[in-house]
Parts: sequence; C-alpha cells; structure tokens
Amino acid sequence: MSKIRVLTGVTTTGIPHLGNYVGAIRPAIRAAAQDNVESFLFLANYHGIIKCHDPKMIAESTKAVAATWLACGLDTERTVFYRQSDVPEILELNWILTCITAKGLMNRAHAYKAAVDKNLEDKQDPDFEIEMGLYSYPILMTADIIMFNAHQVPVGRDQIQHVEMARDIAQRFNHRFGKNIFRLPEVVIDEQVELLVGLDGRKMSKSYGNTIELFLTPKQRQKAVNQIITNLKEPSVPKFKGESPIFEMYQAFATAAEYSEFERALNDGLAWGEAKKLLAAKIGAELEPLTDKYHDLIANPQQIEDILQAGAAKARAEARETLAQVKEAVGIKSLV
Amino acid sequence: MSKIRVLTGVTTTGIPHLGNYVGAIRPAIRAAAQDNVESFLFLANYHGIIKCHDPKMIAESTKAVAATWLACGLDTERTVFYRQSDVPEILELNWILTCITAKGLMNRAHAYKAAVDKNLEDKQDPDFEIEMGLYSYPILMTADIIMFNAHQVPVGRDQIQHVEMARDIAQRFNHRFGKNIFRLPEVVIDEQVELLVGLDGRKMSKSYGNTIELFLTPKQRQKAVNQIITNLKEPSVPKFKGESPIFEMYQAFATAAEYSEFERALNDGLAWGEAKKLLAAKIGAELEPLTDKYHDLIANPQQIEDILQAGAAKARAEARETLAQVKEAVGIKSLV
Repeated sequence: MSKIRVLTGVTTTGIPHLGNYVGAIRPAIRAAAQDNVESFLFLANYHGIIKCHDPKMIAESTKAVAATWLACGLDTERTVFYRQSDVPEILELNWILTCITAKGLMNRAHAYKAAVDKNLEDKQDPDFEIEMGLYSYPILMTADIIMFNAHQVPVGRDQIQHVEMARDIAQRFNHRFGKNIFRLPEVVIDEQVELLVGLDGRKMSKSYGNTIELFLTPKQRQKAVNQIITNLKEPSVPKFKGESPIFEMYQAFATAAEYSEFERALNDGLAWGEAKKLLAAKIGAELEPLTDKYHDLIANPQQIEDILQAGAAKARAEARETLAQVKEAVGIKSLV
Repeated sequence: MSKIRVLTGVTTTGIPHLGNYVGAIRPAIRAAAQDNVESFLFLANYHGIIKCHDPKMIAESTKAVAATWLACGLDTERTVFYRQSDVPEILELNWILTCITAKGLMNRAHAYKAAVDKNLEDKQDPDFEIEMGLYSYPILMTADIIMFNAHQVPVGRDQIQHVEMARDIAQRFNHRFGKNIFRLPEVVIDEQVELLVGLDGRKMSKSYGNTIELFLTPKQRQKAVNQIITNLKEPSVPKFKGESPIFEMYQAFATAAEYSEFERALNDGLAWGEAKKLLAAKIGAELEPLTDKYHDLIANPQQIEDILQAGAAKARAEARETLAQVKEAVGIKSLV
C-alpha cells in the first residue's frame, strides 16, 4: 500500500497554548498515527524571522514548539520531525523557484494584499514598511512542500491560496524544464477542525490575549480557567450553552457522554465556580502527564536537539536527491 | 599591511568574447596581481538562471567562463575562484536578507523599473512576464558581496545601484540586530575601463552581434578581423582614425609606440587589407598561447572542476563562519 505523505509546518514565533493543542497539535498527532500516512512536520524558523525580529523569541519558541509536540506524543519513528534551517537545501530550492515564479502571482497573495490595503487606508505608499520576506514567502512555502513531494498539506481556509501557489509553481517548473520532478500537492481542509474558544468566547488566539497556557500546575490552571467569562447567575439557577465558553471548552476534552453530563449539571443549576473546578480537572487529566514530559524535555534540550538532528538527517537525504535533480534540470551542475 | 578584498561575479549565460577579455578579464587579472589586493571571483550561475532557461547554455557557459579566466592567467593561489552554487550558504543568507529588505528598495531597482516601463509602453500589466528572480536578484547580489565582507566591488556604471543596495541592506541588518557583522562594501568604478569596439564600431557586445571570439585559429581570427568595417579608400590613399574601428582595436593590444607606428602607416596609405593582417597578427600574438591553454582545459574539465572545488572550499570556510554569526543574530540556532 502506498502511503500518503502529509506535510505540516509550524512557525516558531510563539509558545503553543491550549488553542493550538486542540486545533492543531492533538489532531495532527492522531492523524499521523494512521497506518496509510507518512508525516513530515517541521519547525518553520525561516518563516518565523519574516515577522519576528526578536532572536530570543525565535530561539525560545523553537524549543517550546518542539518540546510541546514531543510531549504531546508525536511519534518520531513515524513522523519526520525537523527544523527547517537544518535542511539548507530548501533555501537553494527557494532561489531556483524564485527564478521561475511570476511576480504577478506574488502580487495576488492575501497577506501581501492585506498589508497594501492597510497602507492605502492609512494614505501611505502601498509598500510602506513591507519587507521582501512577507512578499516572497509563498515561494519558500512552495519549496518546503514540493521538496518532499508531499501529497497533502492540511491547512486552514486562510492558507488554501498558498497550496494553490505551490501547485502553480511546481507545474510551471515541470513544464518549463520538461521534467516531471515535482508532485502537485493537494490542499486538505479539515471542515471538522476543532477551534477552541478562548477566555472571552472568541477563538483562542495570542492576538486576542484570551489564551490558556498548555503546561501549568493544577493551581495555575485553575486560576486560568477561573478567568473564563460567565454571567452573574447565582448557584442553583439553570445555566445554558451560549452563556459561557466553558461549555465548548469542556466539550473539547470530554467524551460525548461526559459532556452531556456536564451540560445537564449546569442546566440543573451547577454553580459557575463548581463547573470551573470540573473543567480545570478535566483539562488537567489530559495535560498533566504531558506537562511532566514537557518540563523534562525543556530541562534537557540536548534530548530535543538529538531528535531534531535525526529528523533533519532523514529529511536532508531526500532533499539532496530532489535538489540534485532540480539543479541538473536548470543547468547548475559539476563540469564532469 | 591589511589587504583590500575585491569581489567580482561573472554571470554564466554566454561564451566570453574579445570584448569581455579587453574590458573585464585582462584588467581584473592584472588588478588581482597587486600585492595589496585579495580577490574573490565567482561564476554566478544562480544569477545565470534568472534570465536563461536553457540548462545546456548555463552548463556550457559555466565551463567556458571558468576555462577562459584560467587560460587568461588567473592566479588561483591569489584569487579565491569558485562557482556560486558550490557555496550554498549564500542562499541561506539570501533568505535571511530577504526578511529584512524593504520591498520599496526593490521597486526602485533599475532592471525591474526598465521591465515595467517596457510593459507600460506596450500597454500591458506593469508586471507582465516579470519573474521574481529579476525582481529580487539585488538581494542575492547583496548576499554574494557581504558574505565575504568585500571592501570593494568593481562595477560598470549600470551596476552602481546594486552596490548601494548591498550597503543599505547590510546597514539595516547591522542596525536591526545591534551587531556589526557586515562590512559596507564600496563601489569602485574604473573610469579608464577599456571598452573594446566591435566589428561595426559600436561597443563589442553579444546583443549587437558584432563580436570576435576569443579563442580562434589564426585563419579563423583573420576571417573575423576581415569583417571589421572600413570605407572604400584604395591602397595608398591616407586613412584616418574614425574611418574604421581597426584603429581602436589595434590600440587595445599594442604599446603606445606600436600603435603610433600602426596609425602612421595607415595615415601614409597602408591598405585596409594589410592593416587587418597586422591587427590579426597582433591579437594572435597575445591570444595564441592562451588559446592552447583554453583548449587543454576544455578537454580536461576535471582539471577545472578541481580548481573550482578548491576555491569553493576556501570560500565555504569563510561563508560558514559569517553565516553562523548571522543565524545566531536572528535566533536561528541549535537548542544547546
């Protein structure tokens, strides 16, 4: 049975929170465990430096993201897990693809267009404060994807365009040089993707400041959960879904039966404070074992580094082969 | 005495002709022989693929350019001579610099603006058929230059802007990351640069189709020289500078005294045909020994490849050091 190769990158500009866990990490790890799937997962630190110019945050985030995925059970026997910068062949491919990418394609990229629109609104030059990293990163994403001939790239709706661009660029290369070197990747949108709500009921996101950290002590976790908004209903007054995000949050960590019971208890008048204790305990039941692993890893960065190096070695072996074909196709080669 | 480091790149999209020899190769080799100069010379094949999508030409040109410089006496003990693609660290630096380059800077690049102007004239979309390689190559040129902390980059007037951009980007990096990693390169314009005229009296250039090949047999060379335009003046009629490019061409290969004698002979009525024989012989006297070396090298590509590999090893040793500092500065590093 031929396996489906699935590739995912994680930008290293922040510390993963509970929303990342429910929305990305947990489902990806579950998906990677399927027998017909071969996963590539990488720490996209060369994407990280596009917007983040704080070297400490880039380095800190790289460590935290790696430790988080490993603590959450990523099976590095089944998944090729590497740091983008440890596969420098990607940057060579990035330039070769730059040479065949239409500028017009980059002009249509959503992230760039949004920045231009903002500038025009502010009556600035369209390219005011825009840097070339923001403008050209769809090419780097293309290199990330097609270097490993990924079949599928699971993305959110806002990222569909990038995979389409990768197809476009891969096809242009194959056509121009008369080779069939690159597979055209397919976008996979998980319509069922679980988006965890944050403390205020909006999507949990660093930019909203409504996140809960992933790895906390029980006391810290209770304190965080206590900040979830509710209304002023007294104990014993019936409480309903829609009145507080704690319903959805509990659901994200419970079986259907457990969640029904929780909801019924609130409908029957369970106090918000009691419900928050149940929620913190429920999250804790899943995350406490992972928390210990996380802190172990963070205390032993060499352990993480070794895993990343082993992953990079696997990724590079493939990248070298692909790059050699690509260079040969464009005429970049040894004289003998 | 601290040495001045001078860096030059040669794009690998054609076969060097007599105009390249007089205008670039011969003076660069002479300059590199100065005791206070440390030269870096590279085959810019990653620039070659921007406009040339013919892999055979890229490969052929890379070999021909390398063999030409070596045959013309490039001293590879004194000059670090390498192929750009053999120093992949340059492509990593290229991406890191991409992340800090203002898009507005690229909008102002002459080559890009010329392409846009042409499109507007043709009532096309401004970016019609423009590819990202053309748009972003000043960043790659910056990486080429500042990777090796070159003091000086000798360029023609049309290239001054690129060195200014390299200064701009280097300065921005140093400033943003509070490091003083990059030297700001200085442009050197040789006002005395010898531009060889072509068969028709215009500058000798592939695009005018007025070139003479560098490495010819005496018979082929005479045939080429015979195509130089003259007027219809009969033998014994006085002939003057301005009536044929053979005056300037002879001057490019002769001492001042030899040239005076040649000019006087024509003033005294030497036949054009006789003058062309003298010119072919004069060019031949300089180029015949080099022609043999060239054909030897072309017949032994392994010999060229070994030289390029030795140069790449020297260049990479430096590139690795610089890149390590740069990556550390932006937060791209090992966890331990």
